[in-house]
Amino acid sequence: MIRFHLPRLSLFPNHSLSTINSSPKTLAFPSFSISTISKTKLRFAMATYSTFSDSSNFLFRQLFEKESSTYTYLLADLSHPEIPALLVDPVDRTVDRDLSLVKELGLKLIYAMNTHVHADHVTGTGLIKGRKPGVKSIISKASTSKADLLVENGDKIFFGNLYLEVRSTPGHTLGCVTYVTGDGPDQPRPRMAFTGDALLIRGCGRTDFQGGSSHQLYKSVHSQVSTVGEEMLYNPRLTKNEETFKNIMENLGLPYPKMIDAAVPANMVCGLQELK
Amino acid sequence: MIRFHLPRLSLFPNHSLSTINSSPKTLAFPSFSISTISKTKLRFAMATYSTFSDSSNFLFRQLFEKESSTYTYLLADLSHPEIPALLVDPVDRTVDRDLSLVKELGLKLIYAMNTHVHADHVTGTGLIKGRKPGVKSIISKASTSKADLLVENGDKIFFGNLYLEVRSTPGHTLGCVTYVTGDGPDQPRPRMAFTGDALLIRGCGRTDFQGGSSHQLYKSVHSQVSTVGEEMLYNPRLTKNEETFKNIMENLGLPYPKMIDAAVPANMVCGLQELK
Repeated sequence: MIRFHLPRLSLFPNHSLSTINSSPKTLAFPSFSISTISKTKLRFAMATYSTFSDSSNFLFRQLFEKESSTYTYLLADLSHPEIPALLVDPVDRTVDRDLSLVKELGLKLIYAMNTHVHADHVTGTGLIKGRKPGVKSIISKASTSKADLLVENGDKIFFGNLYLEVRSTPGHTLGCVTYVTGDGPDQPRPRMAFTGDALLIRGCGRTDFQGGSSHQLYKSVHSQVSTVGEEMLYNPRLTKNEETFKNIMENLGLPYPKMIDAAVPANMVCGLQELK
Repeated sequence: MIRFHLPRLSLFPNHSLSTINSSPKTLAFPSFSISTISKTKLRFAMATYSTFSDSSNFLFRQLFEKESSTYTYLLADLSHPEIPALLVDPVDRTVDRDLSLVKELGLKLIYAMNTHVHADHVTGTGLIKGRKPGVKSIISKASTSKADLLVENGDKIFFGNLYLEVRSTPGHTLGCVTYVTGDGPDQPRPRMAFTGDALLIRGCGRTDFQGGSSHQLYKSVHSQVSTVGEEMLYNPRLTKNEETFKNIMENLGLPYPKMIDAAVPANMVCGLQELK
């Protein structure tokens, strides 16, 4: 059996490919060379990460909210008697669906966490806490938001015997973090990176509001999530040098985010004011 | 390591959960009893199928088309030197994306196949054949459509050393089939069922046009895809008895499908008239 060592991280953004591709409209294919590994090797390597995980103790579900094109992720440790679970980037509109699934699968939801203060939807965290008082909300300290647990680069968030590692990946917003599955023989293989909007499939989040910075984003992706093989090869923005990247990001011509004025204040307190 | 034997099939519909949940608006939770296995056992069993596949030779990608909420699946055999690949339910609007991905991953696309004659979008099959003349289109013989290969219940569609088994699952349309990954030590585990609209997550396709029949659909799901654990427990329609199911399907009150008059004639010839 052939075994590949790259990529070390699989990419799980909180936006769907269809959204990402809408800007830019056409995908660019940079003539990009990597000094240490060949394109062919990378191709084979990245082709393998569709299997997601060899770990039979790891529950992984990708859920989709259509209005904002948001992916919400449900993770749990099946080897633990309580099956502790967490939700990454839940959306207010789909809280019923998410909690139904948690109930159906017999999970114990312990965390509702966000990768960043979203501008395109209201987080489901507040509604979830209202319905499940034992659940703790999590967001980065750097977001200057309110939550039960404020996390920083290097922190580990345990659910059962599994954990997520917090990586600071500012640039789309000042407080963006990427949650990466744990490292070790008992942790899911290959490792998975929940990137929020820091790195998207063939794209990245905009950098023109909420403390965004193309310089920071470039640095974040290249230092923290640089082992996502396909994006190393084919991301039309982040395979460029930093100067070109900065120019691209400054000329996206995107409209003002339609939900930002309602969403950001709500998300700064993890959606709590959504509680009736 | 704990090993579960159920479900034998994991569910991969061609519609997203968000679409499915929109009708009915609220999920029902039937008080449903299964004589041979307990709810708890099923819960554990179904929780494991998020890992998708233990097989490192199997490439699996789920792709999404937003306008019609269609999931397209890209599968390939990574152990074969040519990496032969196929697309299930490609959409005309996302052909560029699909072919880009095929190229980036270094795959050899050999089949573009449909689960049925879609009414909500035009298949990408014709456009793909125009761009990649070696690709063969596949649809069921029962659909009475035009394609390079017309398949029937029990047929095996090989791509490298892997294969999909064809199961006749009429009811949403007369010619609906479900493609199920192969059975055997070299095939992906757990087995995956690409159901089209025959069975959706907590739902199913409508049965009021294109030769649809609630009687047929009920029979198809219960005889051909009955080992999808979660749907056995929680599908608000198909856990009911056939009479109740029929009543539900007759009273959905759905509007006339907006794209049906354009999509069905195109899809009857696998989208070929889309070729410029």
